[in-house]
Amino acid sequence: MGNKKNFAVILAGCGVFDGAEIHEATLTLYAIVKHGGTYEIFAPDIPQHHVINHITGEEMNETRNVLVEAARIARGKIKPLSEFEAGNVDALILPGGFGAAKNLCSFAFDGPGCSVNNDVKNAIMETIHAGKPVGALCISPVILAKLLGDVEITIGKDLDTARAVESLGAMHKQTTHGEVVVDKKYKVVTTPCYMLDADIVQIGDGAENVVKAILSLTG
Amino acid sequence: MGNKKNFAVILAGCGVFDGAEIHEATLTLYAIVKHGGTYEIFAPDIPQHHVINHITGEEMNETRNVLVEAARIARGKIKPLSEFEAGNVDALILPGGFGAAKNLCSFAFDGPGCSVNNDVKNAIMETIHAGKPVGALCISPVILAKLLGDVEITIGKDLDTARAVESLGAMHKQTTHGEVVVDKKYKVVTTPCYMLDADIVQIGDGAENVVKAILSLTG
Repeated sequence: MGNKKNFAVILAGCGVFDGAEIHEATLTLYAIVKHGGTYEIFAPDIPQHHVINHITGEEMNETRNVLVEAARIARGKIKPLSEFEAGNVDALILPGGFGAAKNLCSFAFDGPGCSVNNDVKNAIMETIHAGKPVGALCISPVILAKLLGDVEITIGKDLDTARAVESLGAMHKQTTHGEVVVDKKYKVVTTPCYMLDADIVQIGDGAENVVKAILSLTG
Repeated sequence: MGNKKNFAVILAGCGVFDGAEIHEATLTLYAIVKHGGTYEIFAPDIPQHHVINHITGEEMNETRNVLVEAARIARGKIKPLSEFEAGNVDALILPGGFGAAKNLCSFAFDGPGCSVNNDVKNAIMETIHAGKPVGALCISPVILAKLLGDVEITIGKDLDTARAVESLGAMHKQTTHGEVVVDKKYKVVTTPCYMLDADIVQIGDGAENVVKAILSLTG
């Protein structure tokens, strides 16, 4: 590994409506390598909450596994999140997509009263306790608000979601395309991405700015 | 549309082993918008040849639809390829992934004797006949070799695949990461991407160089 910073990336499946948002995930991996880093991809080995037809928006009568579907984005190079060890990485990033709020936690259904998957909770809390940065895109910052409470984050401009995270004790800062919010106490970096009506270059900017902010925190 | 060039992008599903390669597809969309273009995404409305577990590489006992799965990459904004009209676009691009050789044509199973899906054939031939550029990444250039015959393309360095396309009358040029081959007669632009052992930044370079070469051909 040498001087290369190694990023763990947690995926929530494969597809914006029931898994990881594909552009956010891909452009996060791209930004990591572009800035001289390496990545390892993880996902929880659990059933997806549901499977959504991405054309109609309707639920399909199928079951899929989060780890197996996330492997599509990872080109097969992926590990169960239960194998994550904070000692092996320099930072952790969670791209967004509804899967972050349906599979990694239950925020999409339960709001601030949501539960967080145990493997997700362990990975994030171990990284935070090791003093290493955690980045989150799109809706994923709600997981950090749930776990940490008094953390400053952004989910863009959506008022209902902002109120929900504030009810958890978090400070919410409105942001626009590509902007990041850095909480220096926890070393948490967040950006809105597709929580705004964004184009794919704006997603690339957000992912890149999260990676750059993390690198500046890893020292 | 104004001066913006509009690109049609044909996807073969969602995932390298049975559909469209996700990094190539995403980074193609990214390069199009980065260089001032717009995109419309299409896929054939047909069953996938099969569904592959991207961790084990084994076939799963499932059926999935190419258009429905490709919609994951397209975030739902996708049309059946049967609705493609060359008059509405300035160029056409096919990212790679095994789906290009399993769903868009049968090259993965039948080699040079493969058949090409009718909607794929019509979209490509209408674009070529309209004098508009066609780009292809990774394994997708084999479809152009099958349809056009005497076209100059690259699929990287794989000798067996190179021989197969040459048996169709095509000229094959060896290339490395990010390099493009431009056939000026047909306005066909190709690059190897994951036909080489590439990292994700090299994929981004290949996609961007295809988009730039196409823009220089659209005048």
